Parts: sequence; structure tokens; C-alpha cells
Amino acid sequence: MQVDSSGLQVLSRAECLDLLSTAPIGRIVFTDQALPAVQPVNFHLDGHSIVIRTSTGSKLAAATRRAVVAFEADEFDLERRTGWSVTAVGLARAVTDPTERDRLAELPLTTWAPGNRDHYIVVEAEQVSGRRIAD
Amino acid sequence: MQVDSSGLQVLSRAECLDLLSTAPIGRIVFTDQALPAVQPVNFHLDGHSIVIRTSTGSKLAAATRRAVVAFEADEFDLERRTGWSVTAVGLARAVTDPTERDRLAELPLTTWAPGNRDHYIVVEAEQVSGRRIAD
Repeated sequence: MQVDSSGLQVLSRAECLDLLSTAPIGRIVFTDQALPAVQPVNFHLDGHSIVIRTSTGSKLAAATRRAVVAFEADEFDLERRTGWSVTAVGLARAVTDPTERDRLAELPLTTWAPGNRDHYIVVEAEQVSGRRIAD
Repeated sequence: MQVDSSGLQVLSRAECLDLLSTAPIGRIVFTDQALPAVQPVNFHLDGHSIVIRTSTGSKLAAATRRAVVAFEADEFDLERRTGWSVTAVGLARAVTDPTERDRLAELPLTTWAPGNRDHYIVVEAEQVSGRRIAD
């Protein structure tokens, strides 16, 4: 078991992707008008791709067009003070191909926020890293 | 009640700070080697300042030295599909004044990660925004 300089367990890429596939909510980290920005979103892990639904005119859609973004999910147990976090960094792209959009529309991905959300953003999980705080 | 273009309730600054004061964990968003980075941390809200403890040699300490960062906390109810998120954006600074460090050391701020964490980072919550998804 590998441990980092902070004493946290280092997760493998496979462990990170397994954990990401269990999380209903993650946070997309991007730049908005030259400032750091972060927004929680529902997502679905489709192979090595993080799929997010939003509305076409949203700030998120505009700010993540062919941008390198980070995507983070985590889960913590407040009683036991344990938990994990996984971060993926990669290129975000808007899905414009109708065939791909139709395929993504079949994924089990429902957003909690109201409104029409027919715009898909895909983040390729190029760099993946994760840590665990164990008992 | 104000609602944004995504149909989410817009929280006031006072509501945002109240919610931040209840959260044990947040996520600091910064830039690391020109890439977006995000790291979960324990924190304490001290007035309008977010106080974080880390180790002196950590990547977080190096990357947030006089940088504008974002800080996010949230809480979601997976059953009811409700929740809130708050984001603060502001200047991060390392605490170097011994008097201030002694005062911060008295705060109820314990980190879950092991190791010596005697380096304090303070993020001034200059811009604060928050959203709620209600029933």
C-alpha cells in the first residue's frame, strides 16, 4: 500500500475509476472569467469518460468548451473520520454529434436540478488520482 | 425567493456563511502547474475567513501562496435529491504572524489526515455564492 507525503493511502487508477462509478455527485472545476470556479453536478462514468448533462446556455456549458477541467468526487464518514476522494483531470468537450448524443441520452443519468438539460459535456479522465483516509 | 437560470434557489451571503459554518469538510480549488486542482480539507469558518491546516511542505501550501482560490462545501440528500452548495472565492494567504498562528491554533479545527499540520492557510471569503435544490 502506497502512502503519500501527507500519510494518505494512494489509490490506483482502477480503484479511482471504481469509486467514481459509485458516486452520484461530483464537482467540476473550471475557470470562469479568469477566476477558479466549481460546481456540483450529477454525472455518470461511461468507461473512462465523465458524462454531465446541463442546459445549452449555462455558464458551465460556456466555460468548459474545449477546456482542461478537473472533476472531483468524494465520500466521507463523519463519525469514523475516514473517506476517499478521487480527482480526474482532462479535456472537456461539448457533445455535438447526434448519434453520440442519442447514445448518452440512454445512460442512467438524471439531474436533480430542474429544467431542460439536453446539452452533454464529456470529460475524458486522462489523469486520475485518489487518496483514502483509513481507520 | 430568487431563482437562477437553472431553476435553483439563490442563497444570500448570510445564508451561505451560515451553511459554511456547519460543514466539516470543504474543497479548495486552485491551480497546480497550470492545471486545475481540487483537494478536500477540514476547515473552520472564522468570521468571513476560511481557515485550513496543512503541512508546511505540502503541494497545497505551495500552490495557494497569495493565489486567488475557490472554496466549496455542499451537502446533498441522496434520497430526496435535495441539497445545497456554497462557493467562496478569495485570496489565500499563508499565516506567518506568530500571534495570529497562536490564535488560529485555538480554533476547533482538527484535520483527519495524519501528520504534523502546523501550517495555516486563510482564505478570505470575498465573493460568496450559493444554491439550493429544494423539494
